[in-house]
Amino acid sequence: MIYLDNNATTPIHPKVKEKIIEALDQYGNPSSAHQLGRNVRFLIEEARKNAADFLNCLAEELIFTASGSEANNTVLKNAVECCCLFGCTNKRIHIITSKIEHPSVMNTLKCMENRNIAITYLPVDKYGLINPEDVKKAICQDTVLISIMYANNEIGTIQPINEIGKIANDFGIDFHTDAVQAIGKVPIDLSKLNVDYISISGHKIYAPKGVGILFRRKSTKPLCPLILGGHQEYSMRAGTENTLGIIAIGEAFKQLKIEMKDEVKKILYLRNKLEKGIMDNIHGVKLNGHPTFCLPGTLNISFENIEGESILLRLDTHGIAVSTGSACSTGSLEPSPVIMALNVSPEVAHGSIRFSLGRENTEEDIDITIEKLKEVVNFLRKISPLK
Amino acid sequence: MIYLDNNATTPIHPKVKEKIIEALDQYGNPSSAHQLGRNVRFLIEEARKNAADFLNCLAEELIFTASGSEANNTVLKNAVECCCLFGCTNKRIHIITSKIEHPSVMNTLKCMENRNIAITYLPVDKYGLINPEDVKKAICQDTVLISIMYANNEIGTIQPINEIGKIANDFGIDFHTDAVQAIGKVPIDLSKLNVDYISISGHKIYAPKGVGILFRRKSTKPLCPLILGGHQEYSMRAGTENTLGIIAIGEAFKQLKIEMKDEVKKILYLRNKLEKGIMDNIHGVKLNGHPTFCLPGTLNISFENIEGESILLRLDTHGIAVSTGSACSTGSLEPSPVIMALNVSPEVAHGSIRFSLGRENTEEDIDITIEKLKEVVNFLRKISPLK
Repeated sequence: MIYLDNNATTPIHPKVKEKIIEALDQYGNPSSAHQLGRNVRFLIEEARKNAADFLNCLAEELIFTASGSEANNTVLKNAVECCCLFGCTNKRIHIITSKIEHPSVMNTLKCMENRNIAITYLPVDKYGLINPEDVKKAICQDTVLISIMYANNEIGTIQPINEIGKIANDFGIDFHTDAVQAIGKVPIDLSKLNVDYISISGHKIYAPKGVGILFRRKSTKPLCPLILGGHQEYSMRAGTENTLGIIAIGEAFKQLKIEMKDEVKKILYLRNKLEKGIMDNIHGVKLNGHPTFCLPGTLNISFENIEGESILLRLDTHGIAVSTGSACSTGSLEPSPVIMALNVSPEVAHGSIRFSLGRENTEEDIDITIEKLKEVVNFLRKISPLK
Repeated sequence: MIYLDNNATTPIHPKVKEKIIEALDQYGNPSSAHQLGRNVRFLIEEARKNAADFLNCLAEELIFTASGSEANNTVLKNAVECCCLFGCTNKRIHIITSKIEHPSVMNTLKCMENRNIAITYLPVDKYGLINPEDVKKAICQDTVLISIMYANNEIGTIQPINEIGKIANDFGIDFHTDAVQAIGKVPIDLSKLNVDYISISGHKIYAPKGVGILFRRKSTKPLCPLILGGHQEYSMRAGTENTLGIIAIGEAFKQLKIEMKDEVKKILYLRNKLEKGIMDNIHGVKLNGHPTFCLPGTLNISFENIEGESILLRLDTHGIAVSTGSACSTGSLEPSPVIMALNVSPEVAHGSIRFSLGRENTEEDIDITIEKLKEVVNFLRKISPLK
């Protein structure tokens, strides 16, 4: 199996696996006062420190969640309402975002829009880039939050986050970035970055699915829990802690700190090799995303006159795993809203494939992929009714 | 270590551990269209079937969450607002609950109460029982939901759920029960039980922390997600699935189906032995909870003239793990609201200890506990300023 779908999810790191297996016997409830509980509390706080150490923030600025989606929902809903529910607010509220956000941001904001919250969806250029000037222009006196993703999950384009954050800061507006795809791929130093909130997901950095982190800068007001109940996570997220997931994400951060630099270098090399291989061997292809401000492992290509879905399924029979849009919108017949936002035709959007590389990929993976892709594209074009 | 805190959390079942270790290599995103994704999708649906098989409901009536708390929050918030957020509803809404619910129900309802939702908190008798007649009397034309826990986490009292559900049904009102403590201890057949929604937690049935289930009967209207985003869980709960947790809870249900009957018998025997041992050997003790309508493994006892906290810490030094209130309210200096609802003095509430037994406990555990408890209570009473 050649796995080129690391933006959808990543294999668990061997060291993280070891840590999970060890932790299977640490079963106390971290809220329990006895020794078994305290042991688990220690492991959770150790994990929080590992994450904080990588991100260069305070441990108490990190709240463990069940997913990046939950982290995104928490920030967006808090912007609208301190007590995030049932808020009969008469205050006019405005939020700025982009047209290429993840469904967990997009659908939450759409829901708010139906409730008379004003949302500005900023356009992107043909590479998927947001213009910070557009952010500035969109700000009005009702603006309470700007939420712009760090790097796009489908095309990999990296936004000028620090610049946008500076604008937000100058206007005294909270700034959130969904950094799920950027963490571990782009150097992020929270002591220097102009952000108030970031969302992180474990399963994109070689930890298991079901655990995420919400960073909230200490200077922001306490978050109202999306899930109310016990006092867990500084009373900002109730529910017994996902001990295994938390210990795992802590270990993943520890490993990232050791390996990230070399990994990113290798992954970027392989991605560029794949891009060149495709460009040199297959005609009628188009790169989606920015040529340089791009995640090291993401390569999104449109193939003329073919459905991406057909390429995906044929590559799958050859043991090569890729994706069309994001995993979170699989099954939708609509072309990807992210690719459409680049102002391309629906045909180009329908013909797009995302290759996303990770730490386990090898040079051989890339050679085989280029070879098989050539075969598949040639075959599909021969039988394509679109030609 | 003698672990008598199984209501706080349970050790992972050996078969569940095996299943988790196997699943560590199944890393696809269940939403991915390729083989690796489909493999994981299969495992998730298999887990759902195992749970449905145990509960005797349809697989598609089960939604995986990150906790029982999340399941509780989802149901309560949906009762108030179809799209559960930012709802400027002018409709008068009334919810009926009890005074002894879990914090994830209690605190969610308190938050709603601050938003002009009317809440009735039904009293309980001295054994912690709700009178179904009180439920009937509390119903008014604005009542949209009745939420009563199946069995109490601190005292173990089992409510007349089917009777209450029948009343709700007769009035056409949705009925939810937090069954987190009841599952696996009390026979529950959802094809016969008068409930619309139940909340379940994995880590109370020998699966890991961080996974729960919300059952919603097919006849109810679709739930608005608490976490908006992708299409996961029938579009009722967004976020990449906690694959390991879900596979684990599925296996836990499979094991429960095999073992529950014998386990419950053993646990009840050991609990009764512990109760008798305490009553025969220690004076000035009082049982909190119902003498017969009680969870098989729960024993809540108040010790006159001593703080429960002191007993807990001294037993801990002897390697015996018990608790005072629920783990979700550890650290609070207030006496347990559940024990206070039994209409006892604050002194009695402060002196309460919960022993909660599980599948791993042995006869020897109980003998040692009685012995050590006698020592600890005698010692503490000697130095007690309350005496």
